[in-house]
Amino acid sequence: MQDSPITATVDLHRDGVQHGFLKLPHSHDDSAWGSLMIPITVVRNGDGPTALLTGGNHGDEYEGITALLKLAGRLRAEEISGRVIIVPMMNHPAALNGTRTSPLDKGNLNRAFPGSPTGTLTQRIADYFTRSLVPLCDLALDIHSGGRTLDLLPFAATHRLADTDLARRSLDGAHAFGAPNTLLMAELEGDALYDTVVETQGKVFISTELGGGGTTTPETVALAERGVDNVLRWAGILSGKPCPAATRMLEIPDRAHYLQSEHAGLLEFVVTLGEDVKAGDLIARIYSLERTGMAPAEYRAPVSGLLIGRRHPAKVAMGDTFAVLAVALR
Amino acid sequence: MQDSPITATVDLHRDGVQHGFLKLPHSHDDSAWGSLMIPITVVRNGDGPTALLTGGNHGDEYEGITALLKLAGRLRAEEISGRVIIVPMMNHPAALNGTRTSPLDKGNLNRAFPGSPTGTLTQRIADYFTRSLVPLCDLALDIHSGGRTLDLLPFAATHRLADTDLARRSLDGAHAFGAPNTLLMAELEGDALYDTVVETQGKVFISTELGGGGTTTPETVALAERGVDNVLRWAGILSGKPCPAATRMLEIPDRAHYLQSEHAGLLEFVVTLGEDVKAGDLIARIYSLERTGMAPAEYRAPVSGLLIGRRHPAKVAMGDTFAVLAVALR
Amino acid sequence: MQDSPITATVDLHRDGVQHGFLKLPHSHDDSAWGSLMIPITVVRNGDGPTALLTGGNHGDEYEGITALLKLAGRLRAEEISGRVIIVPMMNHPAALNGTRTSPLDKGNLNRAFPGSPTGTLTQRIADYFTRSLVPLCDLALDIHSGGRTLDLLPFAATHRLADTDLARRSLDGAHAFGAPNTLLMAELEGDALYDTVVETQGKVFISTELGGGGTTTPETVALAERGVDNVLRWAGILSGKPCPAATRMLEIPDRAHYLQSEHAGLLEFVVTLGEDVKAGDLIARIYSLERTGMAPAEYRAPVSGLLIGRRHPAKVAMGDTFAVLAVALR
Amino acid sequence: MQDSPITATVDLHRDGVQHGFLKLPHSHDDSAWGSLMIPITVVRNGDGPTALLTGGNHGDEYEGITALLKLAGRLRAEEISGRVIIVPMMNHPAALNGTRTSPLDKGNLNRAFPGSPTGTLTQRIADYFTRSLVPLCDLALDIHSGGRTLDLLPFAATHRLADTDLARRSLDGAHAFGAPNTLLMAELEGDALYDTVVETQGKVFISTELGGGGTTTPETVALAERGVDNVLRWAGILSGKPCPAATRMLEIPDRAHYLQSEHAGLLEFVVTLGEDVKAGDLIARIYSLERTGMAPAEYRAPVSGLLIGRRHPAKVAMGDTFAVLAVALR
Amino acid sequence: MQDSPITATVDLHRDGVQHGFLKLPHSHDDSAWGSLMIPITVVRNGDGPTALLTGGNHGDEYEGITALLKLAGRLRAEEISGRVIIVPMMNHPAALNGTRTSPLDKGNLNRAFPGSPTGTLTQRIADYFTRSLVPLCDLALDIHSGGRTLDLLPFAATHRLADTDLARRSLDGAHAFGAPNTLLMAELEGDALYDTVVETQGKVFISTELGGGGTTTPETVALAERGVDNVLRWAGILSGKPCPAATRMLEIPDRAHYLQSEHAGLLEFVVTLGEDVKAGDLIARIYSLERTGMAPAEYRAPVSGLLIGRRHPAKVAMGDTFAVLAVALR
Amino acid sequence: MQDSPITATVDLHRDGVQHGFLKLPHSHDDSAWGSLMIPITVVRNGDGPTALLTGGNHGDEYEGITALLKLAGRLRAEEISGRVIIVPMMNHPAALNGTRTSPLDKGNLNRAFPGSPTGTLTQRIADYFTRSLVPLCDLALDIHSGGRTLDLLPFAATHRLADTDLARRSLDGAHAFGAPNTLLMAELEGDALYDTVVETQGKVFISTELGGGGTTTPETVALAERGVDNVLRWAGILSGKPCPAATRMLEIPDRAHYLQSEHAGLLEFVVTLGEDVKAGDLIARIYSLERTGMAPAEYRAPVSGLLIGRRHPAKVAMGDTFAVLAVALR
Repeated sequence: MQDSPITATVDLHRDGVQHGFLKLPHSHDDSAWGSLMIPITVVRNGDGPTALLTGGNHGDEYEGITALLKLAGRLRAEEISGRVIIVPMMNHPAALNGTRTSPLDKGNLNRAFPGSPTGTLTQRIADYFTRSLVPLCDLALDIHSGGRTLDLLPFAATHRLADTDLARRSLDGAHAFGAPNTLLMAELEGDALYDTVVETQGKVFISTELGGGGTTTPETVALAERGVDNVLRWAGILSGKPCPAATRMLEIPDRAHYLQSEHAGLLEFVVTLGEDVKAGDLIARIYSLERTGMAPAEYRAPVSGLLIGRRHPAKVAMGDTFAVLAVALR
Repeated sequence: MQDSPITATVDLHRDGVQHGFLKLPHSHDDSAWGSLMIPITVVRNGDGPTALLTGGNHGDEYEGITALLKLAGRLRAEEISGRVIIVPMMNHPAALNGTRTSPLDKGNLNRAFPGSPTGTLTQRIADYFTRSLVPLCDLALDIHSGGRTLDLLPFAATHRLADTDLARRSLDGAHAFGAPNTLLMAELEGDALYDTVVETQGKVFISTELGGGGTTTPETVALAERGVDNVLRWAGILSGKPCPAATRMLEIPDRAHYLQSEHAGLLEFVVTLGEDVKAGDLIARIYSLERTGMAPAEYRAPVSGLLIGRRHPAKVAMGDTFAVLAVALR
Repeated sequence: MQDSPITATVDLHRDGVQHGFLKLPHSHDDSAWGSLMIPITVVRNGDGPTALLTGGNHGDEYEGITALLKLAGRLRAEEISGRVIIVPMMNHPAALNGTRTSPLDKGNLNRAFPGSPTGTLTQRIADYFTRSLVPLCDLALDIHSGGRTLDLLPFAATHRLADTDLARRSLDGAHAFGAPNTLLMAELEGDALYDTVVETQGKVFISTELGGGGTTTPETVALAERGVDNVLRWAGILSGKPCPAATRMLEIPDRAHYLQSEHAGLLEFVVTLGEDVKAGDLIARIYSLERTGMAPAEYRAPVSGLLIGRRHPAKVAMGDTFAVLAVALR
Repeated sequence: MQDSPITATVDLHRDGVQHGFLKLPHSHDDSAWGSLMIPITVVRNGDGPTALLTGGNHGDEYEGITALLKLAGRLRAEEISGRVIIVPMMNHPAALNGTRTSPLDKGNLNRAFPGSPTGTLTQRIADYFTRSLVPLCDLALDIHSGGRTLDLLPFAATHRLADTDLARRSLDGAHAFGAPNTLLMAELEGDALYDTVVETQGKVFISTELGGGGTTTPETVALAERGVDNVLRWAGILSGKPCPAATRMLEIPDRAHYLQSEHAGLLEFVVTLGEDVKAGDLIARIYSLERTGMAPAEYRAPVSGLLIGRRHPAKVAMGDTFAVLAVALR
Repeated sequence: MQDSPITATVDLHRDGVQHGFLKLPHSHDDSAWGSLMIPITVVRNGDGPTALLTGGNHGDEYEGITALLKLAGRLRAEEISGRVIIVPMMNHPAALNGTRTSPLDKGNLNRAFPGSPTGTLTQRIADYFTRSLVPLCDLALDIHSGGRTLDLLPFAATHRLADTDLARRSLDGAHAFGAPNTLLMAELEGDALYDTVVETQGKVFISTELGGGGTTTPETVALAERGVDNVLRWAGILSGKPCPAATRMLEIPDRAHYLQSEHAGLLEFVVTLGEDVKAGDLIARIYSLERTGMAPAEYRAPVSGLLIGRRHPAKVAMGDTFAVLAVALR
Repeated sequence: MQDSPITATVDLHRDGVQHGFLKLPHSHDDSAWGSLMIPITVVRNGDGPTALLTGGNHGDEYEGITALLKLAGRLRAEEISGRVIIVPMMNHPAALNGTRTSPLDKGNLNRAFPGSPTGTLTQRIADYFTRSLVPLCDLALDIHSGGRTLDLLPFAATHRLADTDLARRSLDGAHAFGAPNTLLMAELEGDALYDTVVETQGKVFISTELGGGGTTTPETVALAERGVDNVLRWAGILSGKPCPAATRMLEIPDRAHYLQSEHAGLLEFVVTLGEDVKAGDLIARIYSLERTGMAPAEYRAPVSGLLIGRRHPAKVAMGDTFAVLAVALR
């Protein structure tokens, strides 16, 4: 396969703190010889494990972007043993645009792995992670949240994996992150995810969802920052022990736990995020925006569970996932 | 002045419940002889006061739209004395689009009053309220909230007015609404507001801000519904007495209480909505999205006050109002 | 009032045939000192009456554009007495774009009269007709048709006017055009029409609707060409007598004869254009495009009449006029 | 190959009438976990042949969409033997948008076969038909028409095929449809068509073109509905015999029978759809929209034939096919 | 008239150097309470004359923007007597977008004067200059150049004015600027210009055109910087005498000296900017981009003169001014 | 592989001069059966070498388009021996749009080789050259220039190639072209270039860069025309000897000679195109457009060299190549 067109302006193998860019050539109407400039920070202090910390895999998920921009600004080489590679905005064009996907090619980065050096810009970014950055790391932490269109209870997550040792170490890492909830996910639609690329290379992969709505609060940022430090301590890169908060073990067993709308209109929840519902309980109503005097469509819980996620915008389209239910890990 | 081009498909003077449309001709490329169809409900039971209830003045403020769509669906004529006119989505094209302004003419309805029968579509809607609906009413309740870009502590509000009797009755009405906060606003930039049109005609005007972020929760919708019922009871249209919750009296004295960004980037609050800050306290930081390793811009409170409003999206542009401080009513 | 910014590259008072442009300055991002170039043809042969012939008032009404482009190409000065001014595409940007309105300012020219020399580009075109071309003419023939979104039975039309002599001459002229139907229109919403501008100056105004759907056929073009020749003969500009076909006298008495949709979806007519319907007859159904298995909305004739117009596209939005009924002139 | 991401909300193997959706996950900026919801109806009554009936392969071809939405609403299980699968809008995003292609990815579904489960949304729809629906059927009827940009004489069509038995049965089916014209098509550019996918699996494939212009009339809808019933009778799914009208056997021998414009401007036909032309006859003229007084470009028939299709919009671009000639089947 | 909605974050009357913003409220979909932030610098040192220096009246004219950004960064209060107000990008949204007009409202600022406090954003900016900044100044220097679509020989210019004393002082100031050419302009279309607003208030107004093509060179920037210093010296704000280069006195007598295209296509000049042409000389050809083998349209000089301006892009539309001729001042 | 969907309306093997089109089917919303029409001219006179002359590989590089449109209009068959195939606008949709890439698919043709008959429109064009036109030729001359976003010193160029005989003949051809500079390029990122396709087939390939800025001057067009004639003479197709001007031999050794911006804003060069710089010299500054009073970013030469290219627009984004340095060929 062809080399990646991306070049880094930092030396990934040099000691110290370096701030720079992953430079991806992009020839377009406003710049015949232009480039994308994806910010990257590398902090290294001798030999030791490498953590690859990423945010902005989707451009509107701000908890991780904020925590990692702050970390990049404060981490000193002498605090660590080994190496920390920080890419706060993996899909940088999406982050600059404040959207889930890239405005340049509509690419959803987390559906573009393993990527290709000759594909779309988003696929070229994916390829660089797959072939250039992931091979350097021992563990990868990818901080997601609900973004503009979802609100999620904060959780760290790992997958059920065939490699049971890797699975155990990954779950340990997720525990160490210390979110209020820890989720074990079955591999649904895993083929084009960043997660799969990391795990396939035998590296620990920890994912999170830490809020949403396209905003952050002091609490969600603190949760993300504390989690990152905990994971670096767990990995032995930062000294000290992780201090995780108490966590609840959850899982989402199957597709029946995702509710999708068969109506467009105005969504009204009657249940609050984090509340328990029983099968048959009313969860939400959808009202027509075209006329008054119409009975709303009613949506009831098909199964019992905890409302772990909901659609954030009150305006809903047909096919939108508007509620997600989780159950205690069995 | 010319007649309004808008015709109502309901009879505003007939007893009973009617659901229909305000029909505004709109000749455009996809329909030579098309119309906007703005939903309206009229409930009337004999003589008595008229309340004009509106939501969706901005199309992404869903608390009022939801409460009024629900009211339009449940209110029966025999429950009331007088008349209730409900327009849940004043700027209907904006509401269908999920945006503050109309996608048809970029019109911000609450900057378009008193409007004009020959102006833009948004100005034509404003004119119909000014000359056809407001004259029919004794009180107007216009339910706003923060919309997609602001989060606001819930409050009902009235203005300081030269007509002290109208000012007193209006404040009574705002109290009756029963929001956790009641705000007395000085008239800043009032010229193009719906508020001014109503007050100039000597009618009671009550406004609210009930949350924001482009979403709703069961709590904010309940607050809006309870407030509407309270106001209708206060006006003698529904029987019974209003049951307002305890409220805090606040004001926003001047422009210094609105903080505007002089940087673009990623906004991180260190203070939570509803928290008190002292002059000089750090409120928020703004980080560059262009590169890592840069110190953020820091914004401190220019005055002491309660953080009554904040920007919802974490992405911020130069000039955006990102924090609003209120003080106890003097 | 300021002079029009438009200059003509032809001399409107010179004998002979001239092809040129109405040049309207337009300073925009792709040309700091650019202009619109609206084609015009002037044919003059000594003194005598002046006819102002226009098409493309809406840019997707092709019957008149075609007939007038052909006339501009074939009319010789020696064939006429007096003057013929031909502007086949009044709203030239709209015609170049194949749309009802101008892509430059979304202007609907026939809602922009009398116009203004300092307004939008569309208003500047209107103003030039109002103050520079209409004063030169004795009669104005403006050829409309249904455009992309309407199909109309072919007719020539004039208005009921206070000036009974002008009304009589105008009706004579419409008869002379020789369409299969002749319509006497009440003045509804006349204020911003070209029609009103011409009539207010005491000139004969003849309008037509000659088909639609955004297409033409050999038949509709022939009808337009024959009509133009007839009107020029009737005015004494071409020699010979007009040869009108037999015509039916119709009127559209009021708004109840225009049917507007209260549903969006797929429109199915059960009546054919030109068919008579009785009050209560089913005219059309509208089907949801969101799901199968739903009963369609049914629309019945509110009054009896002839289906003189229908929406052309099968896709329909709320508020679209989809059927127009006419009755024999009383 | 990977499984299709599409899931059906109906059980394709259950007796009775079911209305539901083909649900295709679509993660985008307005819905992180959204879906396309393509309406589907399944009617089954015991064992027997399966007909797969489709419309809206192109989103602006309304004759088939209308007939199939009506059929989905009226067909009862007890009327049939076997199974009828109805997808009235194959490219549902295109149909909702009223355009030939999908607004989401500009995909032309009938150039996207056999599709791919990991490709564009349009390719994913194609793949689901190829691998999930076509294998279930004995015959597929795909109802096309000219859409917004073409007018076509109504015909049913099949292809010349190497499998002569399949070819004979297919032609029988097309005859049974009972359109005024029946066309035998040579396989030109067949590689990416739905047609090819069906035929390659050894199933009977019947296509139609039933009008166009982006509209329907009572006549064209009746033709489509009668044709569908005829085909279901011919297949033994509905009882009774097909009642086809008299039909004319035609073919389009080669590319010379398709006329393409080498000029942009305004198209004027001098021949009517359905008329016979001789080689050398004038068919159409194209006029400049830039200026008056120019001679039009003239287009003459390169071969003799019947004008079976024409461009609908009067505005024409370079390269547009504006006329199609057919000849009696040899 | 209403107050301007614009507030300055700098004190225009304070001594010293201040950098800040003109803040114009802009409520839009991405920021309910947003603002435009137009950069401004004020340098003051006691009493004395005030110069108002502006660039970016059109957003793609970079010579003035560059020179004024540099001046704002280097000018110290102690160097001057009086006051210098610098607004390097009058139409700041246009400058951020790199276009002549504002992307927010398509406003051409120099066609929007005197402006209005309740009009479009562009009109509000114009109004602030008219009523708040121009009254403070003794002289205004507005630095234009050709922008992306024009190349112009560098010149400073003033108008023929009824007030002969003002005219003389203005011409003196233009001389002092020291461009290679000095142009005396007749007032054509002056009504909506910034120029007219300044002159009507009896202040000296100096305009320039200093290159173009949407670029700058070291030479054109040096010319602009030297000119600004010269004008400030001439006004007595900077000490020392202006050192103008030799200049040529020119005028553009009438519209015949502006050549506009009647063809669209590819423009080829046969004359170079700054060359003299005689009436009848070939100036340029325009080639069709639609086909090969066509003779180009040829454009000849209608009058003799110096080619002082030409269209920069080789692609040309109908109506574009592509050549401007000047003559020696008579 | 499938046949190309492109058909030529000219016969590439017939003697004489033919003007026509490469017709590429394009089924889209405005034309169900539409086509791209790429102009082509073929001039042939008996047996002899074939030159394939192309411009408009990028649609805003006008020097080659102009020279080849002129050549296509003037070349007579009797002047040549062999064949000249002229495609002045390879990416015709881009040229019609005046942009580097195609507005239809954003395709950059010179990154789309060798192309594909079933890919995007741009890839289909590439494929036709690769498989249908290049095999017919002995030499290919592809005339580039800087386009709208770059200014380049004029040069002709060839590559270092493994096939030393081909390399020598190619350099001879580039010399024959006779530009003021001749450049020997190392193969960087050559995989998707037209160049590589031609060279891989063993044909002489000559490329040029002849100016830029999206404009032309009489000088740059003359340079292109003279160069084309010289190359045809060198190839023995035109009689006579090439008359190249004196040329300077240059090379761009590596990536360090391309300077890319790490700041967005306003670009000010302190060095002129064609000037020599030493390592460490200041080349350009970049100013913030957001505020005044900020120190600009300064960019210094990392190596010594001749400024052979610069960004044309003064507005610059992060990642844009804004300066290119060349050195004497070693």
